Amino acid sequence: MSNDAPHAGPFFCGVDLGGTKALGVVLDADGSLVAEARAPTPESAFSLGSATPGPHGQAQTERAEEIVECIMGLVSTLTQAIGTPPSPGDDGFALGLGLPGMVDDQGRLRFSPHLPSAAGIDLAVMLAPRLGGVVLVIDNDANCALVAESTTGALKGAQEALMVTLGTGIGGGILVRGRVLRGAEGFAGEVGHMVVDPSGPWCPCGRRGCWERFASGDALGRSAREAAGAGRLAGALELAGGRVEDLRGEHVTAAAAAGDPGALAVMAELGWWVALGLANLTAVLDPPVIAIGGGLAAAGDCLFEPTRKAFRELLEGSAVRRVASLVPAALGERAGAVGAALIARGASAKAT
Amino acid sequence: MSNDAPHAGPFFCGVDLGGTKALGVVLDADGSLVAEARAPTPESAFSLGSATPGPHGQAQTERAEEIVECIMGLVSTLTQAIGTPPSPGDDGFALGLGLPGMVDDQGRLRFSPHLPSAAGIDLAVMLAPRLGGVVLVIDNDANCALVAESTTGALKGAQEALMVTLGTGIGGGILVRGRVLRGAEGFAGEVGHMVVDPSGPWCPCGRRGCWERFASGDALGRSAREAAGAGRLAGALELAGGRVEDLRGEHVTAAAAAGDPGALAVMAELGWWVALGLANLTAVLDPPVIAIGGGLAAAGDCLFEPTRKAFRELLEGSAVRRVASLVPAALGERAGAVGAALIARGASAKAT
Repeated sequence: MSNDAPHAGPFFCGVDLGGTKALGVVLDADGSLVAEARAPTPESAFSLGSATPGPHGQAQTERAEEIVECIMGLVSTLTQAIGTPPSPGDDGFALGLGLPGMVDDQGRLRFSPHLPSAAGIDLAVMLAPRLGGVVLVIDNDANCALVAESTTGALKGAQEALMVTLGTGIGGGILVRGRVLRGAEGFAGEVGHMVVDPSGPWCPCGRRGCWERFASGDALGRSAREAAGAGRLAGALELAGGRVEDLRGEHVTAAAAAGDPGALAVMAELGWWVALGLANLTAVLDPPVIAIGGGLAAAGDCLFEPTRKAFRELLEGSAVRRVASLVPAALGERAGAVGAALIARGASAKAT
Repeated sequence: MSNDAPHAGPFFCGVDLGGTKALGVVLDADGSLVAEARAPTPESAFSLGSATPGPHGQAQTERAEEIVECIMGLVSTLTQAIGTPPSPGDDGFALGLGLPGMVDDQGRLRFSPHLPSAAGIDLAVMLAPRLGGVVLVIDNDANCALVAESTTGALKGAQEALMVTLGTGIGGGILVRGRVLRGAEGFAGEVGHMVVDPSGPWCPCGRRGCWERFASGDALGRSAREAAGAGRLAGALELAGGRVEDLRGEHVTAAAAAGDPGALAVMAELGWWVALGLANLTAVLDPPVIAIGGGLAAAGDCLFEPTRKAFRELLEGSAVRRVASLVPAALGERAGAVGAALIARGASAKAT
């Protein structure tokens, strides 16, 4: 990234709106990163209490407007950083938006356990007047991450692959014969909502025992607080200032990286659940390689080591097959935003 | 099917070797069925006690030879039926073989919980001297069923679809952009071995709680015997001659079709588990249509009705998406054999 503004266009902006934070990037025509910004996801976005959109009352409209403000705030920061704000009809600028949940093939977020206030709202319609004629594409966040990793990251050159993002929830993107698998309406890859224990904890999606209840950042935080409450996580708890309710996944991964036995045990259990879902997906898809991204992937070896070990144990026929490589996403937490920008670049090329 | 032998070739033979029975068909060049035969799968085939092939001792070799005899016996019956036995180098005859389990892209059965004695054995090598130069192709049985249903059956014309076979175990075939999804080594579609309850019953594959432990013909038989043992399945038990150990799935489906409340309750529970796995697969693949075949599909409405109801309840975001159609396989129990013959026809066209 360079600070020598202004750059020459065209520019492609990508925003990855997660359950916790929004991350935006600007790429130049070569796909190089020229600017980056982040902001917290408006708290109201995930406080609606139901993932299923009902009739859109004033409360939801206001919350959706807060999301639009969050996105436009990031876009504004980014365009100021590159010194060339987009103007109406500007074909030297395009925006890609990655959203968590079921995004249909028209770019509408139809269902979103982690962003309920935006589900059923047509963000493209709300954003259009703010963007002038700028090309806008909206896709599922994990599909965006898959595009990024298969274009410039850990899956570069792959024709068949699986991308799994372990964040607030779990997202997935599936590459078949070099293209993203879309399915009937664009909803393929909702891997976090495979049920892996029908008597497991309730999921914001409305069902019990979804994979993401056991293997996401949310799940790590919850099991860490349980372990700490039972006195088994002193090291991580110290990093959290001694308050169980402040304990987060990053305290556990930091303590595990420092060798804390309690934290390592929690990470081993998490890795087992990550592996269980990956083994299920491998039974279905048989991908040669699986890239793991999202915030949890930053945990590194203390997650990947137990996950690889359990994956080999849990995979059907693992003794007589090539076991898929589990690799960290090369673009880390930026994968979704970079992918959204790359998809916008592709759409912009088609539009002109 | 016609009895006016001999027919004019070329002919394409398909054999579907299941965990319980082998079914063979002969198709003519137009794909019409001209002969059919069946035989029980040799009992020794599934009595090895381990799905993982070890070093192949004499016992396994003998058992594999029994499988070869079973296949060649069917082929012999079928070629006599059409009146034109294949001769070495005959390009007017080809054989397709569908096998239950992980068949690699070279046609080798690498892992098979329900046919352990054939796992790791290269049946093509064993069959070749018996077949002369006849074209032989080997594929997973559910992939064969998918090819049959998408060529002439319930999925005709589909570009994206899922085929699920509910037999002794559960098999799957996935159609993406008009072609069977193969994966890295050909193992895609092993849907029966998604784990849906890690503390569930042990599976012959070596793990616990695979979907097929809850939703296959085997699973129906087991839960029926449990229900009968607890006195809740009098109607079905009467059909089985009053002996719990003789109670099979077909007794339950017959009693359910006659309105027996106990049998209907067992079928409703089975349908719930079938739906759970289909909902998981729909989260991953978003198919517009799912064809259900295998022996259990013959149960008809008493399976499909509870399955469709539970599928709608269990599917993520079902209120805001098109719910995939669940349709019975049109070719019924013949789907695997017909598909194997169609794949042989395709390979034969390439070979000549």
